Amino acid sequence: MKAIQYLSSEQPAVFHEVAEPLAAEGKVILEMLYSGLNHRDVWMTKGLYPNLKGGVTLGSDGVGTWEAKRYLVNPNVNWGEDALLPGDQYRILGMPDNGTFAEKILIGSDRLVEMPGHLSLQEAGGLSLAGLTAYRALINRCQLEAHERLCISGIGGGVALFALQFALARGAEVWVTSSSQDKIEKAISLGASGGYLYTEDSWHKSLNKLSGGFDVIIDSAGGLGFSQLVSMAKKGARIGIYGGSKGLIQDLSPQTIFWKHLSILGSTMGSDKDFREMVDFVAEHKIHPIIGSVYKVSDFQQGFQRMDYGAQFGKIVFDHRK
Amino acid sequence: MKAIQYLSSEQPAVFHEVAEPLAAEGKVILEMLYSGLNHRDVWMTKGLYPNLKGGVTLGSDGVGTWEAKRYLVNPNVNWGEDALLPGDQYRILGMPDNGTFAEKILIGSDRLVEMPGHLSLQEAGGLSLAGLTAYRALINRCQLEAHERLCISGIGGGVALFALQFALARGAEVWVTSSSQDKIEKAISLGASGGYLYTEDSWHKSLNKLSGGFDVIIDSAGGLGFSQLVSMAKKGARIGIYGGSKGLIQDLSPQTIFWKHLSILGSTMGSDKDFREMVDFVAEHKIHPIIGSVYKVSDFQQGFQRMDYGAQFGKIVFDHRK
Repeated sequence: MKAIQYLSSEQPAVFHEVAEPLAAEGKVILEMLYSGLNHRDVWMTKGLYPNLKGGVTLGSDGVGTWEAKRYLVNPNVNWGEDALLPGDQYRILGMPDNGTFAEKILIGSDRLVEMPGHLSLQEAGGLSLAGLTAYRALINRCQLEAHERLCISGIGGGVALFALQFALARGAEVWVTSSSQDKIEKAISLGASGGYLYTEDSWHKSLNKLSGGFDVIIDSAGGLGFSQLVSMAKKGARIGIYGGSKGLIQDLSPQTIFWKHLSILGSTMGSDKDFREMVDFVAEHKIHPIIGSVYKVSDFQQGFQRMDYGAQFGKIVFDHRK
Repeated sequence: MKAIQYLSSEQPAVFHEVAEPLAAEGKVILEMLYSGLNHRDVWMTKGLYPNLKGGVTLGSDGVGTWEAKRYLVNPNVNWGEDALLPGDQYRILGMPDNGTFAEKILIGSDRLVEMPGHLSLQEAGGLSLAGLTAYRALINRCQLEAHERLCISGIGGGVALFALQFALARGAEVWVTSSSQDKIEKAISLGASGGYLYTEDSWHKSLNKLSGGFDVIIDSAGGLGFSQLVSMAKKGARIGIYGGSKGLIQDLSPQTIFWKHLSILGSTMGSDKDFREMVDFVAEHKIHPIIGSVYKVSDFQQGFQRMDYGAQFGKIVFDHRK
């Protein structure tokens, strides 16, 4: 069978023939239908991830079949007993453990969650890791409530779009930021109340005035824009951080943080409990993940490049069917 | 009677004759015994506080007598119904409402809490605002637990010392930082496990190694040192911010915040519920506030100067007795 593997820094992503997995106790062999691409996979191919190991199949997301049923893959390996924090043995599927970018994968039966019936196979393929990250950050960490107003920075990526959909399903009002007016328009067509280009001068002052300020803010950039996001926080607001693509945070006012009783909450991935809750939430609210592009797995390089350029709006998924 | 009042920016703190308060419905006249000085009072005399109003008696802390019983003053005015967040009408006693630096004060009977019997009058005089701020930040916001390790930056001020005492009473392990070895030694004599001079190169790396890292960190400085404090946080740590004397926070790593699932929690003052809980906690654990110096109220300028120089270790209190 074929799989996308990391071999070395010279051959960081190779689609080649590998041995089929062998049955093992407590594990099942899942035949993959669709898998989803995450930034994590792209960063590995660029050497931007710690402890890379050669000969490992990449990929954290996916949907597959086992005994005629369809299952989502829970990307957690050994989160541990504490739902609030991962244990020291926690890993994400797809490095150093073999991941989902393969025809068949060997996986613990406790990692499989039945696919909600309203999802298409493509939608199911791109749900796992980004959905989990968004759910934990927004719902379990920031505790977004129905009557609240949310700002999502940098709309377009997988986690940001799930945050948009989850927040709307919960009944919250959602605003977005982007460097692309096209992405803002797309977000509005999905239900966002409005958006603003963070490339404009004093964008945060304009957006604060326009929206009335935010109860919850979700950010994966950090950098110089973070303190501008914080300036739009209402008293008692929660600000979730699930990434830091723009680097170190600067010029952050401690006075704003303590006078407004703000909470800045870091979050990454989520527990097995978060994962089950997220899938139940998606099923209950009949949420359809936004799929940006679909590639045959043999054309995976196009998907990696698309994500690297930041051009996508929605998940990039790979079709593993023959 | 005499009181310390803010008159104008030219006469920011004057000890002079004022009219005695007149009885009013729902209010009582409390005869002051001791009052406590806070940074807030000093900042007002330097024009560093918003919306200053002439002819207002300063002071937020104190203990006094009414109908032969001794009462602590709850410094909150109109916190509101929500214990988690102050309402829009929230004020702290001592600007724009007349405060505690007077022979007698007119105050709502619901603002009085019976003085725990183990306290001396001096100790009781310096408890209210700093005790409230420390209790809410450390216990109700950061949720410090008995088995955890706490770092308190800048030991010596009122809130930091209450945080030290409350944490020890809860059974936690406490470390401190300071620019003064003398203050560190004093903190150790009070029960701290150790301390480190933040004026030393790479002090945070040394303290992290020495202590093993922190579950909770409490800071009122911000500035360049904040991200060094954060670097010592353990996975799942809570970092409480209750001040920002060193200005804007710089070079804060979003990666550290999300990978470690950190919570950075702003807090200032506390609710009426926090105040009652704090006084109960002080009574239950027989905590004796650390008093740094005592001045006759007529010598208040010495107290203001001492706080301004940052020389104090413990609360500065004023004796209002004839």
